[in-house]
Amino acid sequence: MNKNVLIVYAHPDPRSLTRQFVDVAVQTLGNKGHEVILSDLYGMDWKAVFDEHDFPARTDPERLSFVAESGNAYSTGRQTPDVMAEQQKLLAADAVIFQFPLWWFGMPAILKGWVDRVFAYGLAYGYKGEGNRYRYGDGGLKGKRAMLSLTVGGPAQDYSPRGINGPLEQLLFPITHGTFFFPGMTVLPTFAVYGTGRITEEEVERAKTAWRSRLERLFEEEPIPFRHQNGGDYPDSHMLADHVAAGQTGIMAHIKE
Amino acid sequence: MNKNVLIVYAHPDPRSLTRQFVDVAVQTLGNKGHEVILSDLYGMDWKAVFDEHDFPARTDPERLSFVAESGNAYSTGRQTPDVMAEQQKLLAADAVIFQFPLWWFGMPAILKGWVDRVFAYGLAYGYKGEGNRYRYGDGGLKGKRAMLSLTVGGPAQDYSPRGINGPLEQLLFPITHGTFFFPGMTVLPTFAVYGTGRITEEEVERAKTAWRSRLERLFEEEPIPFRHQNGGDYPDSHMLADHVAAGQTGIMAHIKE
Repeated sequence: MNKNVLIVYAHPDPRSLTRQFVDVAVQTLGNKGHEVILSDLYGMDWKAVFDEHDFPARTDPERLSFVAESGNAYSTGRQTPDVMAEQQKLLAADAVIFQFPLWWFGMPAILKGWVDRVFAYGLAYGYKGEGNRYRYGDGGLKGKRAMLSLTVGGPAQDYSPRGINGPLEQLLFPITHGTFFFPGMTVLPTFAVYGTGRITEEEVERAKTAWRSRLERLFEEEPIPFRHQNGGDYPDSHMLADHVAAGQTGIMAHIKE
Repeated sequence: MNKNVLIVYAHPDPRSLTRQFVDVAVQTLGNKGHEVILSDLYGMDWKAVFDEHDFPARTDPERLSFVAESGNAYSTGRQTPDVMAEQQKLLAADAVIFQFPLWWFGMPAILKGWVDRVFAYGLAYGYKGEGNRYRYGDGGLKGKRAMLSLTVGGPAQDYSPRGINGPLEQLLFPITHGTFFFPGMTVLPTFAVYGTGRITEEEVERAKTAWRSRLERLFEEEPIPFRHQNGGDYPDSHMLADHVAAGQTGIMAHIKE
C-alpha cells in the first residue's frame, strides 16, 4: 500500500551529502509509489527559536510558561502558521525521516528548534491534556515510523561499543527514545554514514546503496525494541518493575533484550 | 583568588526559574568576589542557526563545508562579531555555567545554536588545526570548569537509575562529555531542579539554597571523572585499551569508577 513519508532535513547546501541522501530517499520511495513530502528547514528559513512569538494569543501575558502556552495554543488552534503546517505534514505522515549532520553529538539547532516548536503540548506531550498518561509508545504520533539518517564527521571506530565518543545509538537515546518514541512513534535503528570529513566518491556511492536498502524496507524493518510505558514494564508509569531488566540501571534498561 | 565566571542562559522571561537561578548565581558568586559575565541568549536575540552568514569570507563559495569554513574563519579572524564576542567571553572565563530548561532531553535550540556557532574548528575541535589530537580533556578550553544547571519539568523519579526517561546524567552525556569535556573543559556534576511544572514557592527556596551550596564550591568541587584521551586509556586515540573498564561497553565506560 502506498504511504506518506515526510523528510525533515537540515543542510543549506544543495550539494551537501545531506541533500544527496534526501534525493536518494525521494527517488527510492517515489519508485515504490510512496508520496514524499519535504521539510527543507534551511530552505524554509525555519525559525529555530521557540519564544513568545509562538503564542499569538497568550493565556498569561505576564509570565511565560512554555508548557501552558503551548497547550493553550495547540488546543485552541492559535499557533503560528509555520508550526501548524509542520504539524499537518507530521499528522499526515506514515513515516518521518530526519536527515542531518551530527553536530556536537546532537541535532543542528535549526532541527532542534523544529522539535521544540512543532512538538506541542497536547500533541507530542501531555496528549489529550492528560499529563504523562500517554507517552513512550503511546501518544499523538502513535503508529508513525521515525528514522534518523545521519552524516557523521568522525570515524565509525570512535562510535563503536568501546569507542571514545560512546556508541552512536546511546548518544542518540535522548532523540530516539526521549523525543520520537515519547509521543508514540515506532523508531527504527539509525542509519549513519561515518567519516564524512574525508569521504571518497566511491564510499559515497556505497553509502547510497546501503541507504537505498534501508529505504526499501522502511515499512517492514524491525524497530528499536523500546519498552512501552503502558505495556506492563512500568507499573507506576515512572520506574521499571523490579523483575524487568532486574538489577540493571541506565538507558539500556529501556530496550528489550 | 577571584575568578571570571560566564553564565550562558536560555529563557526569555525575567520571572522564569531560569532567570531566578541566574540571579542567585550572580549574587552568590559576586559575594565571593568573582567577576560574573552574562550571555542572555534570548535577550541578545542570539542567532541560533549556523549557516553561510557565519562565514563572511568563504574559502569555497561553491560548496559549503562547515568544518572547512569554520576553521578558516576562526584562524583568519573573519568570523561574525557576535561569535567573536562570545569566544572572547569564553576564553576569559575560568568557569562557565549553562542555565537552561531541559527541552526534549536536551538544550533549547537557541543554546544549541550557541554551541554550533561559537565552538569553532581550531578552538573547540581541531585544536591547533591538528584534527583529533587534542580532545577529551585537552584542547582550546582546557582548564576551564563547566557546569550545567537545569530546570526539569518532570519528577526526579523519572530520571532515577531505573526511571523511565533514563538517568539524567546519562541523557546529558552528549553535552557534558561530547560538548564540554571534548574541548578540554573540566565538567562538574549537573545541578538539576525537578518537577518545575508544579513546583511550590517553598520548593523553589529549597532549590535556591541547594544551588547556593553548589556555587560556593564551584572551584573546589570534584568534576565528573571522564577519562582523558591522552591519559593512557585510549592508546590509539579512538578505543579504550582492553584492560581499561575491561569487558564494559557504552558511555559509562568513559567515566572512571
